[in-house]
This record gives sequence, structure tokens and C-alpha cells, in this order.
Amino acid sequence: MADTENTQVLVRALPEGQLRVTDFEVTHAAMPVPGDGEVLCQTLAIGIGAGQRAGLQGSASYAGAPTTGIVMGGQAVARVARSNADTFAVGDLVLCASGWQAWSVHKATALTRVPDIDDPAAYVGVLGTNGLTAYFGLLAVGEPRAGDTVVVSAAAGSVGHLVGQIARLHGTRVVGITGSDAKGRRLVEELGFDAFVNHRDAGFRAALKAACPAGIDVYFDNTGGDILGAALFRMNEFGRIVCCGVVSQYDTSSPAPGPKGVPGLLVNKRLRMQGFLVFDYAGRYAQARATMRGWMQAGRLTAWQDEVMGLENAPAGFVDLLAGGNVGTRVVRVTR
Amino acid sequence: MADTENTQVLVRALPEGQLRVTDFEVTHAAMPVPGDGEVLCQTLAIGIGAGQRAGLQGSASYAGAPTTGIVMGGQAVARVARSNADTFAVGDLVLCASGWQAWSVHKATALTRVPDIDDPAAYVGVLGTNGLTAYFGLLAVGEPRAGDTVVVSAAAGSVGHLVGQIARLHGTRVVGITGSDAKGRRLVEELGFDAFVNHRDAGFRAALKAACPAGIDVYFDNTGGDILGAALFRMNEFGRIVCCGVVSQYDTSSPAPGPKGVPGLLVNKRLRMQGFLVFDYAGRYAQARATMRGWMQAGRLTAWQDEVMGLENAPAGFVDLLAGGNVGTRVVRVTR
Repeated sequence: MADTENTQVLVRALPEGQLRVTDFEVTHAAMPVPGDGEVLCQTLAIGIGAGQRAGLQGSASYAGAPTTGIVMGGQAVARVARSNADTFAVGDLVLCASGWQAWSVHKATALTRVPDIDDPAAYVGVLGTNGLTAYFGLLAVGEPRAGDTVVVSAAAGSVGHLVGQIARLHGTRVVGITGSDAKGRRLVEELGFDAFVNHRDAGFRAALKAACPAGIDVYFDNTGGDILGAALFRMNEFGRIVCCGVVSQYDTSSPAPGPKGVPGLLVNKRLRMQGFLVFDYAGRYAQARATMRGWMQAGRLTAWQDEVMGLENAPAGFVDLLAGGNVGTRVVRVTR
Repeated sequence: MADTENTQVLVRALPEGQLRVTDFEVTHAAMPVPGDGEVLCQTLAIGIGAGQRAGLQGSASYAGAPTTGIVMGGQAVARVARSNADTFAVGDLVLCASGWQAWSVHKATALTRVPDIDDPAAYVGVLGTNGLTAYFGLLAVGEPRAGDTVVVSAAAGSVGHLVGQIARLHGTRVVGITGSDAKGRRLVEELGFDAFVNHRDAGFRAALKAACPAGIDVYFDNTGGDILGAALFRMNEFGRIVCCGVVSQYDTSSPAPGPKGVPGLLVNKRLRMQGFLVFDYAGRYAQARATMRGWMQAGRLTAWQDEVMGLENAPAGFVDLLAGGNVGTRVVRVTR
């Protein structure tokens, strides 16, 4: 607690068109002081997800209506620095809605305890919202069956790289859609994906077809737009499309129309297209985390973490993430 | 069996743009002769559905790839005129894939027996594909719950007018979307719909919102296009969109893109959008027909039949149907 002031990253302006680093501002504020039943938390690591871009669009999304002049939102793993609550002691690790700042105060009831594992930052990655999103989106919404072909877009992203691995653990053939060959090769070589397709290639649609000779049974969509459109045309009868995110549409002020084939192809192929938010599965988080930790300990699930050092680099890390610069979960490491 | 030749309606040309009467041709052919195990059927009444327009588009749909110079497809109630099979006798009523012709020959195994009810033409309407589509689409895919708001498009059509009534029988509030106030009023006054909205009105979106003060829980989509787009924006969280047909896109050579909000709104509102084909429920047809006959006998379900007299008027009846000229199921009455 050597700090005497709190470093914060504020949303300066709602982005017009693509997000820019100058839409944010790094400032310093007085250290917050916990009241009765409250806890002062020191931020260790913040997770950044593309979905947060939606919260900065002109209309309200599931991330709520946007505002400027406030601390940018975000979830972090933090260490308790001062506690006015019986339930937490100094040094405890917690998950909290810190936002992009070095210190934050929370009601003890708003905190989730994090076990003292090797790297607690996993709680904003594979054991946090991203991992849980991959787990419930694939298993509860996509319902893969052994022998299915599962395709995931933004496959090297925070959610995608886990979706593919969890799908393989369920006996499916897994094809990842990425925006770079280098990322795609890593998915195949390091994570065991069966194939990858680069959506920036001119021959993307043909390559997707070739990579899925038996069609697609489950498509886990993180992107929307043209990639969704391409996958839709390769779906098998009774296929499931998991609508998880719309990264192709976040970084803009005017979302594109939906893909051709909606709803015609849904009828002809009896497809189910279903959106979900991970928060609806909160009652099952503990079980999912235990399952994923088991896979990790057995060496069957690898979590990629893509770190940015220091709060002041968070805006650049976010802009770069939206351009596809990350591999795995982007984490801002604030302090050790 | 006074006929000595068979009247047929052929597909002369695949329509370019909107379907025209001149895309068909009425001709005469030799009377067909049944072989071993086959049955000669005299067509009584043929059902016409907007979905058949899809079968005339340039690419294959669930109705199969299109061809010219052949008898236009369609299902009919027919009377057995000659039988070389033990299982059917002269005078029996059957459902058969006659196509648009006065006489047709079928393997006995391809026929479905129709009971000798008051008007067997119901078997190409409320007790045929249309009614079964309404029944299974609404109940098995839409899963309405008492208190839900159910909206159906093409609400005065062959499927729509039944969807609304079946939905009301399940304790829901029902709003029909039609293309004319006259049809809409009939839905409310004669069939008990709670409200209707005319999608041709400039204030359509506002009217839909006003007619659904508690939002939409189940949207039964027969149209796609802008109407789907409007309904999508009024859906409640965890709502279900039943994709049944795409009548707005059938009568064209170049289908429009999908609605804005796919997939973004599906995610934010956790919507399920699901296509289906009634044929997948064939194993449950008998039970559904029995249920619907029960409702009809109790005066709780009214089947609207909209008749065209004579095969030679079938093309005009089809063109008019695609323009929204029908109320209820369009049936071509071929002979009594």
C-alpha cells in the first residue's frame, strides 16, 4: 500500500467509428476509502474482452448504456488491502468489478473469492467469464455430439481457443476460423485443432468447405457478419449456431444487416440459432470451473493468456484486441 | 370415369422475378393406367401454399430442384378410381402427391388414407400440411406458455390463421400481422385474435409495439424480411422465433439480406431462432389431427378455406396467393 493515489483509465469520448486510444485518458484520483462492510482491493490483473466494445456503442447493449467521464469497466482479480468486513481478510484474493483502475472499493457481498492458485489471473481468463462462456455456450447451447464437426470463429481469441479444445474433448472434429495463418497454425500445432481457415483469404468460403467435408454441425459464432454468413451455408440439417458475440460489428457505429439465408436456410435445414449470455449460468459456475481445472491439471486444456503490462497500456491493448492482435485472453497485468 | 384424357397444368418456364400465370400451361394428356400394386386416383381438391413458390426458384430448396415441362407439384385429396392393390378399393379417399392434374397413378404404399369426413378437402388444409405446420411449429418449436404474447405473420394465411387460434387455446395473447385491415378485422372478429397490425401501414413498427405492450415471447414467422426485422426488435428475453416460411422472399430471384439484429439481438436477448419442416413430425401427425378435429368439433378451431374452381384457374390462384389474395388455405376444387 505504498500508493498514495489511484491510477484510473477513463472513457473520454464514445468512439465514432473505430475505437482509438485517444478515446481513453489516464488520470489519477484520491485513494478510495472503504466504509462499513466494504473492502479495499488492489487490482492485480484485468481481463479485456471484445464484447466490452459493445458497451461503448451509442445504444444500450447487455453491457448497459454508455457514459463518458467514468472509469472504463472491467473485471479483475484483486488482492484485499483493507477489509471492514468479517468475510474477507487482508491478502485474500477476489474477483471484482474493479474497472480499469489500480484500487477499488466494494461491498464484501459483491466479491467472489478466488483460490490461491498458481496464477490467479486465470480467474479473468479460462476460469473467468471467457472460459465459462466457452464452456456453457458450447456444451449447453451448441450441444455437440461425438463425431460432429464444430467450427468456431475468432478461434484464437479468449473464448474461441477454449471452445475448440472443449469441443475436441467431446469427440468432435474442430475447425477454427482466424484472421491470420500464424494464429491458425498455433491452434493446430499447440492446441490440437483439426484444421484452420483464414477468413481474410480470398478463397475463404472454398477453404471452409474443404475443411468441413462432412458439413458443420455446431457453429460457435463470435463474429457475426460475413463469417456467420459463410458458415450458415455449410451447416448440416439440424445444426446448431451458438450466437456468442458479434466482434465484426462492435467496432463501428452502424451494424451491418444480417446474413442472407436468415431465415430461409434456417427453415430448409431446420437450424437452431440461439444467443446466450454466460451470466444466466451463474448457478453452475463452480461445477464448470472445477471441470476446467481438472482438464488443465491433466494437461488436456491449455489457456492462452496474452498480457499487456500496466494500466496505461490498457487502451492500446483494447484497440489492438479489436483488430485481432491478441492470442487467447488479453489480460492487463497491473501489479504482481 | 367419363374422362378420356387427363387435364394437367405444366410449369412452362421458371419465373423471372414475380410469378406470372403465363409461367404455366394447361394441357391434356392420355389417361394414366395403373400397374401392379398401383392405384388410379381422381383428384378432388388440391392445396396450394406459398412455400411452393420456393420450388420454382433457381436453386434447390426443400421442395427440390426446379424443372420445367413437368406437372406442377402439389398435394391433393383424391378418390380411388381403379385399384390394383389389396389395400385400397374404388371409392376410397386418399391423400396423394397428385400434382396439378385431374388424374394420377401412385403406388399404394405412397397413399395416405383419408376418412370420409364432411369435406375431405380439410386434408389439404387444417388437417393437412398447413394445419400440421401450424400445430407443430407453434407447440413444438415455439413452446408458448400461458400469459405469453404470440405474434404471427401472414396471419390470415393458411398456416397463420390456425397458429393464432391454437395459440389462444393455450392461454396466450395473440397478435396477427396481415397485409390488409379487412383481413385483420376478420381475424379479430371471427377467430378471436386479440389484435392485428397491418404491415403495409407507414406506422407498422409503432403499431406492432402498441399491440404488444408486454413485448413478444413467441414470434411465428411466415414472411422473413422487414416483418421479421420489426418483430425481432420487440422480442422479450428468452423469446422464441419460429422460422416457418419466407413468403416475402419467395416471389423473387434474389433474396434480400437477413434482418439487422442477427445475431446481435439474439445474443443480448438470449433469443432462439429455429427453423423447422413439418415432415420431421410425421410420426405424430395422427395425434395432432385427432386433437385438431376435436377442437373443430367443439367449435374452438375454425378452418378458413379459400377455394378456386377448376384446374385451369390454379395458376391464377397461385399468383394471387403470392400477392396475399387468399384468406385461409387456398384450395383448388377439381371435381366433387
